[in-house]
Amino acid sequence: MAIGRETVENILKLTNPKWKTSITRIEPNKIVTRGYPQEDLIGNISYPEMAYLLIKGKMPSEKDSKMFESVLVSFCDHGVTPPSTQVSRLMASTGSSMNSCVSGGLLSFGKYHAGALERSMKILQELVQNGVIGYNGPLQSHHDIRAVAGVVVDEFFNNNEKIPGFGHRYHSEDPRASKLIKIAEEYGCNGVHTELALAIEEILFEIKGIKMNIDGANAGILSDLGFDWSLGTGVFMMGRLPGIISHVFEEKTIEPPFRKIFDVDEIHYQDTEVKTRSLAKVMNKK
Amino acid sequence: MAIGRETVENILKLTNPKWKTSITRIEPNKIVTRGYPQEDLIGNISYPEMAYLLIKGKMPSEKDSKMFESVLVSFCDHGVTPPSTQVSRLMASTGSSMNSCVSGGLLSFGKYHAGALERSMKILQELVQNGVIGYNGPLQSHHDIRAVAGVVVDEFFNNNEKIPGFGHRYHSEDPRASKLIKIAEEYGCNGVHTELALAIEEILFEIKGIKMNIDGANAGILSDLGFDWSLGTGVFMMGRLPGIISHVFEEKTIEPPFRKIFDVDEIHYQDTEVKTRSLAKVMNKK
Amino acid sequence: MAIGRETVENILKLTNPKWKTSITRIEPNKIVTRGYPQEDLIGNISYPEMAYLLIKGKMPSEKDSKMFESVLVSFCDHGVTPPSTQVSRLMASTGSSMNSCVSGGLLSFGKYHAGALERSMKILQELVQNGVIGYNGPLQSHHDIRAVAGVVVDEFFNNNEKIPGFGHRYHSEDPRASKLIKIAEEYGCNGVHTELALAIEEILFEIKGIKMNIDGANAGILSDLGFDWSLGTGVFMMGRLPGIISHVFEEKTIEPPFRKIFDVDEIHYQDTEVKTRSLAKVMNKK
Amino acid sequence: MAIGRETVENILKLTNPKWKTSITRIEPNKIVTRGYPQEDLIGNISYPEMAYLLIKGKMPSEKDSKMFESVLVSFCDHGVTPPSTQVSRLMASTGSSMNSCVSGGLLSFGKYHAGALERSMKILQELVQNGVIGYNGPLQSHHDIRAVAGVVVDEFFNNNEKIPGFGHRYHSEDPRASKLIKIAEEYGCNGVHTELALAIEEILFEIKGIKMNIDGANAGILSDLGFDWSLGTGVFMMGRLPGIISHVFEEKTIEPPFRKIFDVDEIHYQDTEVKTRSLAKVMNKK
Repeated sequence: MAIGRETVENILKLTNPKWKTSITRIEPNKIVTRGYPQEDLIGNISYPEMAYLLIKGKMPSEKDSKMFESVLVSFCDHGVTPPSTQVSRLMASTGSSMNSCVSGGLLSFGKYHAGALERSMKILQELVQNGVIGYNGPLQSHHDIRAVAGVVVDEFFNNNEKIPGFGHRYHSEDPRASKLIKIAEEYGCNGVHTELALAIEEILFEIKGIKMNIDGANAGILSDLGFDWSLGTGVFMMGRLPGIISHVFEEKTIEPPFRKIFDVDEIHYQDTEVKTRSLAKVMNKK
Repeated sequence: MAIGRETVENILKLTNPKWKTSITRIEPNKIVTRGYPQEDLIGNISYPEMAYLLIKGKMPSEKDSKMFESVLVSFCDHGVTPPSTQVSRLMASTGSSMNSCVSGGLLSFGKYHAGALERSMKILQELVQNGVIGYNGPLQSHHDIRAVAGVVVDEFFNNNEKIPGFGHRYHSEDPRASKLIKIAEEYGCNGVHTELALAIEEILFEIKGIKMNIDGANAGILSDLGFDWSLGTGVFMMGRLPGIISHVFEEKTIEPPFRKIFDVDEIHYQDTEVKTRSLAKVMNKK
Repeated sequence: MAIGRETVENILKLTNPKWKTSITRIEPNKIVTRGYPQEDLIGNISYPEMAYLLIKGKMPSEKDSKMFESVLVSFCDHGVTPPSTQVSRLMASTGSSMNSCVSGGLLSFGKYHAGALERSMKILQELVQNGVIGYNGPLQSHHDIRAVAGVVVDEFFNNNEKIPGFGHRYHSEDPRASKLIKIAEEYGCNGVHTELALAIEEILFEIKGIKMNIDGANAGILSDLGFDWSLGTGVFMMGRLPGIISHVFEEKTIEPPFRKIFDVDEIHYQDTEVKTRSLAKVMNKK
Repeated sequence: MAIGRETVENILKLTNPKWKTSITRIEPNKIVTRGYPQEDLIGNISYPEMAYLLIKGKMPSEKDSKMFESVLVSFCDHGVTPPSTQVSRLMASTGSSMNSCVSGGLLSFGKYHAGALERSMKILQELVQNGVIGYNGPLQSHHDIRAVAGVVVDEFFNNNEKIPGFGHRYHSEDPRASKLIKIAEEYGCNGVHTELALAIEEILFEIKGIKMNIDGANAGILSDLGFDWSLGTGVFMMGRLPGIISHVFEEKTIEPPFRKIFDVDEIHYQDTEVKTRSLAKVMNKK
C-alpha cells in the first residue's frame, strides 16, 4: 500500500469533520476554553464572567459582568407559585432523580411561563434595528425612541394584546424591575433597548397604570449587553436553576413521598350524567 | 349561616395547607427570599451567594462564597467530548427549543457520566462521619485520615473497582483538580473531607500513578462547605449549564438542521446473514 | 356553628374545583374510563381502540380501529438514522434510566424531525375546511380537490419551500406510504384529506418526480379519522415509543458504557489560529 | 495513490463501526425491521406484536400477543390522581409542546410512582431463577412456589417493608388485577412467575387482608412472557402514553393557560416568625 492507513484516516477527518466547535479544545491534560486554560479561569473569574465568556466568546468588561450578575440574581426564585416549581416538587415527591426533577421544571417554560423575556427581547431588538414605519432603520435619538414607543403601545392596544415585559399577575409594582433599572443606570448599561423599554413603560403607566416587570427590565438590559433574543430563556434558566434545585431539595427533605396536592373528592368529573356504559353493546365484533 | 364562607375557607387553608416552603414568600409587590427582600439581594450578592443562600438558607462567608464560585467555574465545559453535550447538540439540530435541548443534556447525567461527584461526596461524607472498622466514629486526627484512606483504597482494590473521583478518561493529570486544591488551601476551605481525598490520592499515586480528578477535588471541597452529597449533581448542573447553553447556541448558529453525525453506510447490522423473512410463514392466523 | 365543616368543605369543592376531567373517574375499587369500567376494557379492546377511546372519548368503528393500528405500526422504527434514536442511545450509554432515555428521544422531535406530520395535517385540515381563494369553504367535489392541490403546489413552489409530507431524505419512494394508502382504500378511510394529499402527490410527481412520504400519507389518513392536527406528534410518539425502548435496551445490553461515537482527534476546532490567551492581560482588575 | 479513497473509507467503516444495531436496516426505499420489510408489517401485525417484535426480536405467538395487549390496555389511565398526570397537565397549561408535556409525565416515574412494576418483576425473576435458602436453584414444582412465597412474605414482614405489587393506595381490591389473572389463565400465560405472585397474595390476604394490585399481576405475567425486569417501566410507558396524551389534550382544550391549582394564601411559610432580615448587617464586605 503506497499510503499509510493513519495518513488516510487523518485526511478523512480533516476533510469531513463530524464535530466542530470554537468553545473548548480538549487535549491530554489540557482544557482550553475560548482560548484560556481552565486552570487560569478557576479562581480568577466569576460565574457570570464564565457564562458570558462561554456564550459570547470574549470576556465582559467589569461593569457588564456586574450587570449580568444582577440579572442572574434577579431571576432566582418566585416561591411555589410558578407551574415550573410545582412540577419540579411533584416530581421530587415521586422519588425522581435531581436531574429529572430539574428537567421537568425547565420543560415547563412555555409560551405562558417564562416566555415573556424572549418575546420582549425580540420586540425590543427588532424595533431598535428596524424602527417602525415613519422611523425606519436603527433607532438613534431619544426623540426616535419616544415616538417608536408610542407606535408600539398603539399597535398592541389596537390588537387587544398585552406587551410582554409589562404588568404582573401578582405585583402591580414589581420590586425587582426598578432595582434592575437603577443598577443599569449606575453601571451605564442602560442603552437604547433599556431606554425604549422605559419609554414604553412611561406611556403604559400614564394610560393604564401598568408598570414594567422583571422581564421587561431584563429584556432591555440583556439586549444592551449584546445578548441575542434567542438566548433569553437560556439566561433565565441559569438564574432560576439554583431556586429549582433548592425546591427539589426542600421537597425531598420535608415532604412525604407521593404527596397529595388535593383530595380525591376535589376532582370534578365533567360528564357526571354518563352512566357506566356496557361494552357489549358497542362491540358487536367480539 | 352563622359563619362566613371566607372564615371557613381560611380555617381550612390553615389546618390543611397543600404547599409549604421556607424558601420564598410571595405577597403583592413583595418577594422575600430566605428572609431578604429580593430587591436588596439584586446588585448586592453574587450568583454563588444567591445559590448558597437558596439551598442552605443562610449567607455564606466571603471565603466560602469565593470557594463555591471556583467550584462552579471549574465545571464549566469539556468541549464536545461528553455524551451530554453531544445529546444537546443533536437535539438542537432538530430544531428543538433551548429548554428541551438543555433538559436533554441534563438527563444524560447517569451513573457513568457526572455521577462520580455524588458518589465521591457520599463516600467521603460517610467515611468522615462513621470512620471504618478500627477507626469508628467521626474522623478527627490527621492520623485517622491516613489510616482510613488506606482501608478505603484496599477495599476498592480488593473488589476490583475504581474509586470515584480519581483517574480520568482523557487526562492523566487533571489540571482543574490541582488548581481547586490550591484555592481551597488559600481560603482555608480544605477541611477533613478534602484532606481525606488528598490522602487517598497520595496512596493511589504511589501504587498506580493515579491522580485526583475534578470530581474528587470538588467532592472534598463541597463536603467541607457543608453540601449534602445528594446535592452533588445539582451543583454540577449549575456549573455546566452555561456550557450546554453555549453549545446549543453554537449548534443552532453554525450547523445545518438535522445534521448527520455519520454516514448511513457506517452502520453495522449485526445479523447480516438474516435474509428478509416472509411474514406469511410466521403468521398463519391472518 | 350552624353549619358543619364537612358541608362547607363540600360546597367549596363543588364551587371551586381545582381539577376537572372527563377521562377517568376514580373511586375505591372502581376505575371508569370514558364511561367503561377498566376491567371490561382489559382483554376486550385493542391498544389502538384504547388510545382512540382515551383521546376522542368514544370507541372507534372496527375499520377505523384497524386503520389507526396500521398508522401506529407504520411509525415503529427507522433504525439508528434519526437524531432522536441517537440521542436515546447516547443517553443509555451514560447509565441514564429508561424513562430518561425515552424522554430524551421524545424531546428530540423538533421542527426538522417528526414535525412534518403535524405541519402536513394542519395544512390539509385548513385547506379542507377553508379552501383557497377561488374555492372558498369546505372542499366537496373531486374537482375542488384537484384545483386546490394545484394552488397549494404553486404557492409552495413560489416561496421556494418544500411541502411537508412529500419527499424523503433517504427514500425516493417511501414503501410505507403506498402501503398505508392501499389499506386506507381497503377500509374506506380515504376521505377528502387523503384525496387531497394524493392530488398534491400526483402534481408533485409529474413536475419533480417527488412522491408522498409516510408523514403525508398518515397526515391524510389521521385527518380523515378525525384527529386534530395538534395531536399529530402525540400519535407519532405512540407509534415510535416501542422502537425507542428497543434501541435503549439494545444499547444497554450490547454496548460498553460511555461509548465514544467519534475519536477526540475527529473534532475540528474552528479558531485554530488562536494562541492560548493570557488572562492577566484581559483582567486588570484582579 | 495506489489505493482509492473510497476503498480506504470502506475498510475503516467496516473495521471500526460507530453504530451497530440488529433492529432496523435502512437502505434506499427499503426499511427492514427484525428481518421483515415494514410494508409487510403495516396492516398485518398488531401494535403489541410490533412492540414485542422490536424489543424481543421475534414475533409472539397469538396467545402471547393477546396477553401482551391486555397488559398494555390495563395500564391506560388512572385519572388525575397520579403525580405524572398532574405534572403533564401543569406543563400543558404553560403552553409547553406536546412532547415536552409527555416527557415531563414520563420523568415523573420514580421509586414511589410506577417503580413497583420493575421491582416486583425483579423480585419474581430472581426468586424463580435462584430460589431461596432451602429451595435453591430454579423453581419447579408447585410445592417449591408455596414455600418460597412464605419465605418472601416473612422476610419483608421482618424488615417492616411492603412487597411491591401488593396493596393499593386507593383500592382495597384492584379490579384490574383479577381481570388480568383471569385472562392469563385463559391464554395459558400463567407460568411460574404468575403462580409465585398468586402464592404471595394468598398468604398476604390470609394474614393482612392485602390483595395483589395491577403491578403484581403484570409483573408475573410479563415475566412469564419473557420480558426482562429492566423493561418493566418501558412497558408501563407504552401502556400509559395514550392516557397522558389525552390529559394534555384535555388540559389544552378546556383549561385557561397558566391556571392556578391553589390560591396564593393557601401557601404555608414555615418560618413565619422570621422578620425581614437586613442584608447590610450580614455583608460587611460591601
